[in-house]
Order: sequence, then structure tokens, then C-alpha cells
Amino acid sequence: MSTTANRPAGAPAGGPVEPTPDSRAPHRPLRLRDVHIDGGPLGRWQETNRAASIPLGIKQLEEAGNLHNLRLAAGEVTGDFRGPRFMDSDLYKQLEAVAWEAGREDAGELHDFLRRAGELLAKAQRADGYLNSYYQVVRPERQYAELEHSHEMYCAGHLVQAAVAAARVGGEPELLAVARRFADHLVEVFLRGGNPGIDGHPEIETALVELYRLTGERSYLDLSLHLVDERGKGHIAGSGMGQRYFQDHLPVREADTEVGHAVRALYLEAGIVDLYLETGDESLLASSVRRWEDMVATKTQLTGGVGSRHSHEAFGDRYELPPDRSYNETCAAIASVHWNWRLLLATGEGRYADLLERTLYNAFAASTSTDGTRFFYVNPLQRRHDHTEGDDPGRRHEWFSCACCPPNIMRLVSTVGHYVATTNDDGLSVHQYVPGTIRADLSAGEVALSVRTEYPWEGEVAFAVDTAPEGEWSLALRVPAWSPSVGVSVNSEPADATPDERGYVVVRRAWSPGDTVTITLDLTPRLVFPHQRIDAVRGCVAVERGPLVYCFEQADQAEGVDVEDLTLAPNAGIRAVPQADLAGVGRTVLLTMDAAAVSQPRNGFPYTPQPTDQAVTSRAVTATAVPYFQWDNRDGGAMRVWLPVSPQVTSGENS
Amino acid sequence: MSTTANRPAGAPAGGPVEPTPDSRAPHRPLRLRDVHIDGGPLGRWQETNRAASIPLGIKQLEEAGNLHNLRLAAGEVTGDFRGPRFMDSDLYKQLEAVAWEAGREDAGELHDFLRRAGELLAKAQRADGYLNSYYQVVRPERQYAELEHSHEMYCAGHLVQAAVAAARVGGEPELLAVARRFADHLVEVFLRGGNPGIDGHPEIETALVELYRLTGERSYLDLSLHLVDERGKGHIAGSGMGQRYFQDHLPVREADTEVGHAVRALYLEAGIVDLYLETGDESLLASSVRRWEDMVATKTQLTGGVGSRHSHEAFGDRYELPPDRSYNETCAAIASVHWNWRLLLATGEGRYADLLERTLYNAFAASTSTDGTRFFYVNPLQRRHDHTEGDDPGRRHEWFSCACCPPNIMRLVSTVGHYVATTNDDGLSVHQYVPGTIRADLSAGEVALSVRTEYPWEGEVAFAVDTAPEGEWSLALRVPAWSPSVGVSVNSEPADATPDERGYVVVRRAWSPGDTVTITLDLTPRLVFPHQRIDAVRGCVAVERGPLVYCFEQADQAEGVDVEDLTLAPNAGIRAVPQADLAGVGRTVLLTMDAAAVSQPRNGFPYTPQPTDQAVTSRAVTATAVPYFQWDNRDGGAMRVWLPVSPQVTSGENS
Repeated sequence: MSTTANRPAGAPAGGPVEPTPDSRAPHRPLRLRDVHIDGGPLGRWQETNRAASIPLGIKQLEEAGNLHNLRLAAGEVTGDFRGPRFMDSDLYKQLEAVAWEAGREDAGELHDFLRRAGELLAKAQRADGYLNSYYQVVRPERQYAELEHSHEMYCAGHLVQAAVAAARVGGEPELLAVARRFADHLVEVFLRGGNPGIDGHPEIETALVELYRLTGERSYLDLSLHLVDERGKGHIAGSGMGQRYFQDHLPVREADTEVGHAVRALYLEAGIVDLYLETGDESLLASSVRRWEDMVATKTQLTGGVGSRHSHEAFGDRYELPPDRSYNETCAAIASVHWNWRLLLATGEGRYADLLERTLYNAFAASTSTDGTRFFYVNPLQRRHDHTEGDDPGRRHEWFSCACCPPNIMRLVSTVGHYVATTNDDGLSVHQYVPGTIRADLSAGEVALSVRTEYPWEGEVAFAVDTAPEGEWSLALRVPAWSPSVGVSVNSEPADATPDERGYVVVRRAWSPGDTVTITLDLTPRLVFPHQRIDAVRGCVAVERGPLVYCFEQADQAEGVDVEDLTLAPNAGIRAVPQADLAGVGRTVLLTMDAAAVSQPRNGFPYTPQPTDQAVTSRAVTATAVPYFQWDNRDGGAMRVWLPVSPQVTSGENS
Repeated sequence: MSTTANRPAGAPAGGPVEPTPDSRAPHRPLRLRDVHIDGGPLGRWQETNRAASIPLGIKQLEEAGNLHNLRLAAGEVTGDFRGPRFMDSDLYKQLEAVAWEAGREDAGELHDFLRRAGELLAKAQRADGYLNSYYQVVRPERQYAELEHSHEMYCAGHLVQAAVAAARVGGEPELLAVARRFADHLVEVFLRGGNPGIDGHPEIETALVELYRLTGERSYLDLSLHLVDERGKGHIAGSGMGQRYFQDHLPVREADTEVGHAVRALYLEAGIVDLYLETGDESLLASSVRRWEDMVATKTQLTGGVGSRHSHEAFGDRYELPPDRSYNETCAAIASVHWNWRLLLATGEGRYADLLERTLYNAFAASTSTDGTRFFYVNPLQRRHDHTEGDDPGRRHEWFSCACCPPNIMRLVSTVGHYVATTNDDGLSVHQYVPGTIRADLSAGEVALSVRTEYPWEGEVAFAVDTAPEGEWSLALRVPAWSPSVGVSVNSEPADATPDERGYVVVRRAWSPGDTVTITLDLTPRLVFPHQRIDAVRGCVAVERGPLVYCFEQADQAEGVDVEDLTLAPNAGIRAVPQADLAGVGRTVLLTMDAAAVSQPRNGFPYTPQPTDQAVTSRAVTATAVPYFQWDNRDGGAMRVWLPVSPQVTSGENS
């Protein structure tokens, strides 16, 4: 058994995805501390995550019983198992978040939590490496006997990811030892032992590739590939959920559209691209790209949210994209970020960074309240007045009985700098624009940049070269597809701003400290229109500015203007109104526009022989929109991302 | 304990709803054999129900284990309980269907089934009257301990309804005895015994009123009222489903909109109106009417289907009416028929018969295949190509693991004549138009009519008086709200066709045998438009003709015309094309119309800065529509009730 690590001991801490030097990744991520975010929304999320969310998560793990369950398995306490059977995974995601956070900025108490958890896990782990508090405490006789819903390998995957994080930030060897013992056990059972099972919930696939990347142990990669190859052979057909739910309906190389449980589907995709990167199996990449293109064209919301059905938390049919009933689970947005990032590493194509950005700033960011203490599990694009889901009014919660999302949010926010930039043989590529610093090792030597920007509130991003190696290298800056124009200057001189075929403006030259490059993206607010096949938002428009999708919340409208009556002309002029600190929301840019409040009498059966526009009354008003990611921080009123196009063009202002 | 029956022994067999002579019902139903349907769709449904559906149901009850479970409870066999805990209720609904069918037209084998089932139930019943195979066999210690999901009273309600049916058609006293023993047990426990519980699934309420009507035993009425009065006091708050799911969130007199599980909600409404009828408590009627008006205006599909959410099989928010994801459970349509009928008896208002008709011919009738052997549980108004729900392609099934719908369909079809006409002090009212005969006892004496009509394929309905009592009485004929014009002739002379405030043309005169009355409804095909708040079908139109909602199925379109591309101009001319026997469908009237096939490239992210109509290509084609209730009898292709309005008006024909 080889145990050669791919990165020499003592190297700077890596991030969550580190393709091996031999991988097929033309783009290589930076290390965790190579990107420092200093301000902007992402900087604020990281501060809030550290100050509010992570402490809340640690408290909740104690209160909800996740730690209690492992203490039961460790023989430290007595009592009953609490919560769903995948409770261990919440702890693992929390551990991963804490590890990355400790890596981002050291703190003793974070390391303490990692150490204590590592000790508890080591104590709870069986001598053969197996570790799962539910199956050890409640149903030992069913170990690996109900893989369709046991989540044993799913939990193992999150344990591995936590351990990889802890190892990469240089802490807690105990956690890695626990994870490796469990991974070795899985290798013995499922790769060498002939057990043909696969887990109902993918996650282990990407985790095992990362463990291989960390340790060099080839059997982890082999097991991951084995689990992906076995998928679609009907191993879990008898579950009662059907095969599509588990992505077990077709071999992955044959499937051409995302189906079933959205989080499972996209965690699996992350693993598939990881496997391509490390094995070079082009058929894996080709199938994943094919499904990505289909998902983007037919199964993705404007916010980047995916998984439109409440039933089974699943992808719907093509073009089934309701704004009100869209499930858009937060974890699915996170999985989409993971998948897009790996596709970007594999191809360098800006379209993956585009969707990553859209998902990050909208579907994902909306999950968390401004203060970092309340979370959405479901992220619809519309909430009606008096909405209820069962008895729930559809606002954020502090925690969930199935608490997969909050710690998953925390681990992504802790690592969000990982998704900012990459190096390739040509130089440095910047994919996401954040203020702060970027440091990287090019083949020619070290480069360091300072970045000044008020993005996404303003469109100018200024890079200053602080350190540069000798010779020419390229600085590639992504031009988002949403930007209708772009300007670039180098050392204050206009430069060619034509994006290359990947969607990047590439400035190639010999650089010196003090050189500057500025890219200016076009943040003119814009209306967007849906494809005609998207029935649920036919005849509607939405408003965007930069990477931000906007929404109309009742809280922002003038007295007497009902969000549910608002309509927009297809040529509405939109005005940006910066807010230094909007109550409850913080810094933002509101958008105001001329609109019409249209009302139709509610009068018996709502289907009539007259076209609707013959029965309505229209009134000119001003409509105000707030970034979608900042919604539900004031009250519980109605919200709409999509507004109907006005029955007739109106003008004039006010109500 | 009084046991005076309200109807003297030996009286003609009644139907499913028989208000007492002292009730507040101004309209009284006819007896089961007083309406004979001879042809037309409803006649055909009854034939198919008897020849195909009921035999299938009896076979399935054996195969699915419903009878097996009761044999377990009776000690006749050994083995495991099979199926969900409410399995008994499927048998009871089947028994009710068989009883009504035997009453409609005698047949020895139907009575044999009733007798054998009655014997089995008597044997399975405990000495104290309790009867529930699940709780007797599997969890005796939990009897009445988990009413939120036990379905014990729900099953009891269906037993009572089956027994009432058997008694009214003059058969099987054993079944009534079993039902009364169980009802007496419920009275002891819940009315007199102080158990404050209510059942999570309403149904017992309406059943107990009917048992009171049959037997005169007041305690059944008292228990029903008690269970309705206790609802909304939070007795089942701790179920994990929330209170709205069970309609336990508010006292019924306070609730103003339908919430939660749709079948539960509307069975409860049927019981509420029954209680009003027998107790005269106006607050019950007022609250039910208030919710009906809200439901009709904001929570009802064009087909009459209700319950728009898959999640919890529940009502959605107001105006949440997606065509593709609408659940529209068949049983909810049945419950809506039950409720509307009782409101009609209580008020005589045609609007309830209108919704009953719409629901019957569309939401309900679509549930069953032309051949009567396959059933929908879910009745959406749109199915996309390649649709899947889990692994299911969304076509009808022969049976279901939760088989509530098929026997429920059968009991309604067996009794559909019950909903055709009523008497009041003024005469005879005809609410639904079917060919055949109607006989009734007016206060002045017997009336008998023959009805000739090809309704709903043609608009003329001709009544001939065969028997008439002395003196003046009124023949009231409903004018459906969908009919833009109406003509009436009496003895071939034009007569006043102005509907009264209830929506009926009333012809009052002294009648003689041989007199004729003809009403002609306007079946001109029509476009209908949705209220602007119904987001999910904004910018769309649907097509109706008479009481029938139409849909566009792929099977009917010309080669090369994709249903998903079809759009209609808001002034489209529509042509009716009668079909004597369309393959797979039978007799029907197709509608054809000029349309435009509009296609938009599928090209990456489907949200763009251009209005959709700038990116589409349009082609003049002919679109063909088939009645919604006849859909899915050919292939599994796409179907739409709502078509988008064409981006520009097109003309010309064919592809």
C-alpha cells in the first residue's frame, strides 16, 4: 500500500479540491490562504460565518444530539439515539467548516473543537474501522444491509472531507487516521470484498478522490471509480423510491439529463469530474458536460437554484421551473458550486465560473440571513402573502430536524476564497471578483496581486501587481456572460477587452510590481426574459444587476402597493439606488422602476371568456427591488423574482 | 336509545344522501332507481363500471390483501398484515359501490359478495363492536392511541356508508348490524366516554349523519357534531404534519379557506353541510359557503380539480394552481362532488350544480380509462414529453399500493344518477342532463319524464312528460354558467328562457302526459382565460365546449406538430369535429383550430435580455383538442390543457 502524499509535508495548506500534479486539470486551485478576501459581501459572509454561524452550529450539534449519538457509540453515555440516521454527517460538515475556518485564520477554540471531536470519533470507531453511530447503536445487525437509505458511505464521505480539511490546514492527525481506517474498511468490503453495493446518497465518490489526492493511496481512487461504475446497474432498485431518485436508472456514461434527488445527483457529478481529472477517462467528462448543458438549458432557475420539486427533493421534467414551488435546496446549490468548480478546473471554460457565480450570489447566498443565524432549506423565487407549507410560513429557521444545510453552508463560506482564482501554464486566471489579495506560484515564480473593488455593487475591479516573476505571463479575467460590455485598462491605458473563446480577457505581458489592470463590467440594470418553454413564468420579466438577481419584496414597496399586483413594461427604465446600510439588510443597491399596479376583481370562478387585460385596472406606481440574496430579512410578506409584463405599457410614477 | 327509522320499512331504495323530512334541505334527492340513465357518457361509465371496474376491484381486494387482513382479524388464516393501515377502507368503498350497483340493477353475484363480506366482517368484529384489521392484528395496544394517523374512524365511516348503501338497496342486514355495533362503540368512547380525540382523516362525520338518517338514532348525529366541534382545538397538533394538514388549525366556523390534505378537507365539508341540514346550525353552513367561495375563486383548477400540491396531497396557497404539478387527487374530486351536492340540497343554487358538473365531467371522469380498468390518482392539466414522477411516466395504473381512488370512483359512478334531479315544494329540478328517465314523488303526486339528449356532445335536451299529477308544478332546468345563451320551448313553442336567480329556467304550469319541454344550451366552443393572479397559466388560453374542458394531446396532432410548440391566437376560430368512435377513445367531439407552432432555440441559459417573441419562429398549423376526460387513452405523449397565446396573431392552416 502506497502512502506517498502528493504534497510534501509542511507545504502551505491546500483547499478543498487539489488535483494531483498528474491530473488532467489544466487549471490548478490556489492554496487556502493564497486568497484573502477583505470586504465585500463575501468578506462579510466569512466574518458572519465565523462570528455567528459556526458557534451556532457547534451549539446545535450538542443540542440536537449529534455528539450525544457518537458518545453512545463510544460508550461514554447511555440513552437513545436521536435524530435521523445520517446525524453523523452534520457533525462532519461542521468539522470541515471549522477546519477550513481554522486554516483561514487560526484560533485555538476551533482547533480544540477539532481535537475533541477527533478523540470522540476515534473512541467511537470500531476496531475494524467502521464508524456510524446509528448502525452501531441502533441497528448493528443491518450494517451495509440497507445501503439505499443507510447513508453509511455518505456519512463516511463527509468524515473523509472533514479529515482532509483538517490535514490540509495542518491539524488533528487523529481525524485523518479515523477517516483512513474507515476508508480502508470500505475498500476491503466494497472494492476487494465483493459487496456490490453502492450508497443511496452519493458523496463518498468525490471524498475518496480527495483522500487519494491527499494521501496518494490508489485504492481510494479505485473504490471511487468502482462505485461510479456500479451506479445505474439497478443495485438499489427495490427501495420503493424508484431508481431515478438515486441516479441508479442508467450508467452515468449513458444518462443525458439530471434526475432524482438533486443533491445526490450533483454530488455524484462532482465525483465524476474528479474521477475524470485523476483517471483521464474522457467518457466521464463528456457525460457530465452533456448533463450540465441540459441542466443549464432546461432545469436551472434564474438564481442558479436546481431541483424544482418538493416531492423527493428532486429535479423535475425539462422546463418544469415553477418560481413558487421550486425546492432549490440549499445543499443542491452547494453541490452545483462543487461541480462547476471541477468542470472549470477540467476545461478552463468561463461558463462554469458564470454559473458558479450566479449560484453563489443568489441560490446559495439567499439561504442565510444577514446576521448568519437563520437558514433556508428551500429557496423559492416567489412567496405569496399568507404562504404556508404545512403550518410553516416559509421563513428561515435557526436549525432543522434534517440539518444538512446549515453546516454545509458554513463549509462553503469558509472556503469561498478557493473559488476565486487558478493558475495554469499560461499564468493566473481570476474567476470571481473580490477585494483583497491573491498570491500564487506560477512556474516562473511567485505572483501577488492586490484587488480593489466594490463588486458586486460597482463594476470596476482594479488589480495591482505586488510581486511578479520574470518573463511574460498572462492575467486572465473572466467576462461574465451577463455583462453586455467590458472595458480593460493596463497601467491606465485602454487595452483590448475582447474575451477569448473561454470568456476571459487575457492580458499577456512581462509584469512588474506596481503595474495595474482594471476591468470594468457593465452593471446597467437589465430585464431578463424566460425561454418560452418555461411555462411557469411565461409573460414575466425579472430584473438583474451584475451577478445579482433581484426580487420584489413587500417591505420595499410604497404604502398601498401590493407586490402581487406589480407588473413591468418590457422597456422599463431602472434606477440604481445605493444604500449604505438598509435596516435589516446592510449595504445594498436597491433598484426602482416605473411599474403598473394591476388589479383584477376576485369574483367567482377565475376562468372567464374574456382575456384578462379586459378586466383589469392599472395604476402607475414605482416598484422597488432588492437583491434576492438579501430577501426575508425584514418581514414575512410576499416576494416575487418574476413580475408579469404589464398588459399595456404605462408610464409615470408614484401611487 | 331511539331506533326509529325515518323511512318506513319497505320504502323504495334511497340513494347515498337522504336528508330527513325534518331537515333544512329545501331540495330532496330522488331514490336510486328513480333516475335511469340510458346512454351518453354517464351511461357508458356505468356500464363499464359494472362490467370492468367492479370485477377488477373485487379481484384486487383479494390480491392486495384487504380481505386477507380481515381474515387474519377473524382468525380464519394466519400470516402478516398487508398494505397500509387503512386497507379496510378500500374494501368498504368497494362494498358500497357493489351495494349501489346491486340496487341500480340486481345481480346475484353482487349480493353474494356483499353477504360474504358481511359475514367476514361480523366474524372479525370484536365483541365490543370495534373493528379494524390493522389495530386488531398488528397493534392492538395502540387502539385509539394514534388517531392522527390511525384512520380508525375514517375506516369506520366507510364501513357505515357501505352498510347504509346495503340497507337502502334492501340487502344484507348483517352489514348494517356490524356498522351499528362499531358506531355504538364510537359513541360510547368518544361521545359519552370522554375521549377527546378526533380522527386525523375526516369521513366519519358525513357517514354518521347518514346512519342517523337511516336509523333515526340521534346519538350518531350527536357524535358527528361533537367531532366537528372538537376540530380545530389542536387535539392532533403533535403529529409532525402540522395542524393545517388535518384541518385542525382553526374551529370550522372560523376557517375561511381550504387548507391541508384536500380529501380530508372536503369530506369534512360534506359532513359540515350534512350537520347543518339536520341540526339547522346556520353557522356551519355559512362557514362552509365562505370556504367554497374562496376555493372556487382561488384554489380550483379549470377541470374542477382541487388540491394543487403533491406535498401532503394538499391545497396550496391562493392562486397556486400549476397545471403540470397539480395533484388534483381523484378522491378530492369525489369529495368535491359530495360537498357540492349537499350545498345544492341546502340552497338550491345552481352554482353548486355547475361546479359538480365541471368536476364530474373533467377532474373526476379523467381518472378512469375508456375501458374502465386503469385509473389516475393524480390528475394534472399538463404532461410534458418524457415526464417522470420518480420512475413513473405518469400514466394510469390498474391499482395502487394506496388504493383509495379506484373503489371511490366505482361508488360514485354507481350512484351518479343520484346527482341528476331533486324535488322541492315547487316541483322538480333537473341539475344534470342525461338521457333516460326521471321519476319523482311531488307533494301532488307522481311525475315521470323521459329525457332524450346527446348531451354533452349536443346541446339540446328534450323532456317528455309521461306521468304528471294534477295541478301546477314547476320543472326547473339548470342553465350552466358556461352557456352564453339558452333556448327553451314548451310543446314546441318558444318559452321564456330567462334563468332565475338560482340559475334555473323554471317552467311552471299544469302538465299533462305528452307535454314536452326542450332546453338548448350553447355548445359553441369557447376560449377561456385565467385570472391574472394565477401565475402558472399566465398568457395562456384553454378551450371548452359545453361542460367539457379540452386538452391538446400529442396523439391528435399532425405529423411534425409538437404539442409543446402550440400557441393559439386569442380570437382563434374553433371547429367541432364529431367522431363516432375514435380509436381508443370512443365517441367524442374533437375540436380543431388554426394555431401557430412556435419554437425557440434551446441554446444555453434560458433567461435572456430579449423578450421571447424576438427569438421564436412561428408556423401556421392546425391544432386538435380532445375532451380532457378522454386523455391518455392512446399513447404516453405530451398533453396540455392551457396553450400559450401566440406571440403574434397567425392565420392559415396546416404544416
